[in-house]
Amino acid sequence: MKSVIIYSGGLDSTVLLYKLARENSLVEAISINYGQRHSKELEFAKKNCQKLGVNFKLVDLSNLNPIFGDSALTNKSVNVPNGEYANGNIALTVVPNRNMIMLSIAAARAMALGCDSIAYAAHSGDHALYPDCTTEFADAMAEAIRRADTRKIELLRPFINIDKSQIVKLGMELGVDFSDTWSCYKGGSLHCGKCSTCLERRQAFSDAGVKDPTIYEK
Amino acid sequence: MKSVIIYSGGLDSTVLLYKLARENSLVEAISINYGQRHSKELEFAKKNCQKLGVNFKLVDLSNLNPIFGDSALTNKSVNVPNGEYANGNIALTVVPNRNMIMLSIAAARAMALGCDSIAYAAHSGDHALYPDCTTEFADAMAEAIRRADTRKIELLRPFINIDKSQIVKLGMELGVDFSDTWSCYKGGSLHCGKCSTCLERRQAFSDAGVKDPTIYEK
Repeated sequence: MKSVIIYSGGLDSTVLLYKLARENSLVEAISINYGQRHSKELEFAKKNCQKLGVNFKLVDLSNLNPIFGDSALTNKSVNVPNGEYANGNIALTVVPNRNMIMLSIAAARAMALGCDSIAYAAHSGDHALYPDCTTEFADAMAEAIRRADTRKIELLRPFINIDKSQIVKLGMELGVDFSDTWSCYKGGSLHCGKCSTCLERRQAFSDAGVKDPTIYEK
Repeated sequence: MKSVIIYSGGLDSTVLLYKLARENSLVEAISINYGQRHSKELEFAKKNCQKLGVNFKLVDLSNLNPIFGDSALTNKSVNVPNGEYANGNIALTVVPNRNMIMLSIAAARAMALGCDSIAYAAHSGDHALYPDCTTEFADAMAEAIRRADTRKIELLRPFINIDKSQIVKLGMELGVDFSDTWSCYKGGSLHCGKCSTCLERRQAFSDAGVKDPTIYEK
């Protein structure tokens, strides 16, 4: 396979970056600035691509920011909630249709480069409360992507049957330095340790029995 | 229905704009600058929205231009071919995955605005040589869009069973001023009259028995 990866600089997609680079199937990593508060993740995306010698393409879609309305991830007047994911506060962290937009751009890039696949790090623990993280959504997108070009582009989801702690274990085997990955939604200089994605990150290291190298705010 | 329309300023989507405005189901028209050579169409998009009192949202995705590679529509070093669509020269006018990108952004906007549908002017004459104009592609996208949000967004294609000449006739009934629409891919100050889309435009007026108000280059 010759793939383009959708690469955020987060924990999951960094492990996928290492896996595909190891398998020598990676043509380009594409990272998207959509005006996210936590654009710090993009610095780590660039750094990891440089480490591995992977072509890094940063796409600036920050102009899209106003179309997303009141998402806490793109609208700085809306606070990112603390605590675990729950129906009540997850709505604030939804960026409308973010995954479809990213997949569509990665597919465009795969077509332009003559690749046969795009890969992203959807995993079994992704929240059903995010509709665009469900298997049903991804299956429908996979079909649309196959139909969108004469060269059939496949949507690869190698982590779809494993959870975040298993991704941490795989990352350890692949030599990922997790201190060069970013999860926190709040966009501070350190991980806050309190928002939903920080809690998930901590739990994944704990469940994996791997020392968490992340420096959290006191 | 409360809809967002994907609106280019071209002939087909202008007729759809008038139709939805007449039906009072239009919340916003979204136009996308993706670095197209014929960005003149966007001026007509704005003008027609002003005429009808429709909210006009121009999304600047010109930063995307470099990802599309060697399309004649976005890369000014590649010439737009003359003559009818054919396998040989149509490839030059393909913008990789353009329709999926536009649909994904319109769907995001519909979610942010609380709309129940997005509409676009795909019609029965759209070229099977463009894979992302086929019914199979659109059906797969409709399913993905339904899956992408808790509120099911419908993909409306009111022109899918009529051709361009029938769209011209409908436009006449709705009072469209076709001199305020733009088709030519070449991006000059007048329609060239020779590129594939100009030939189609001329033929549609001729087939409809409607006087073509377009001023073509000599």
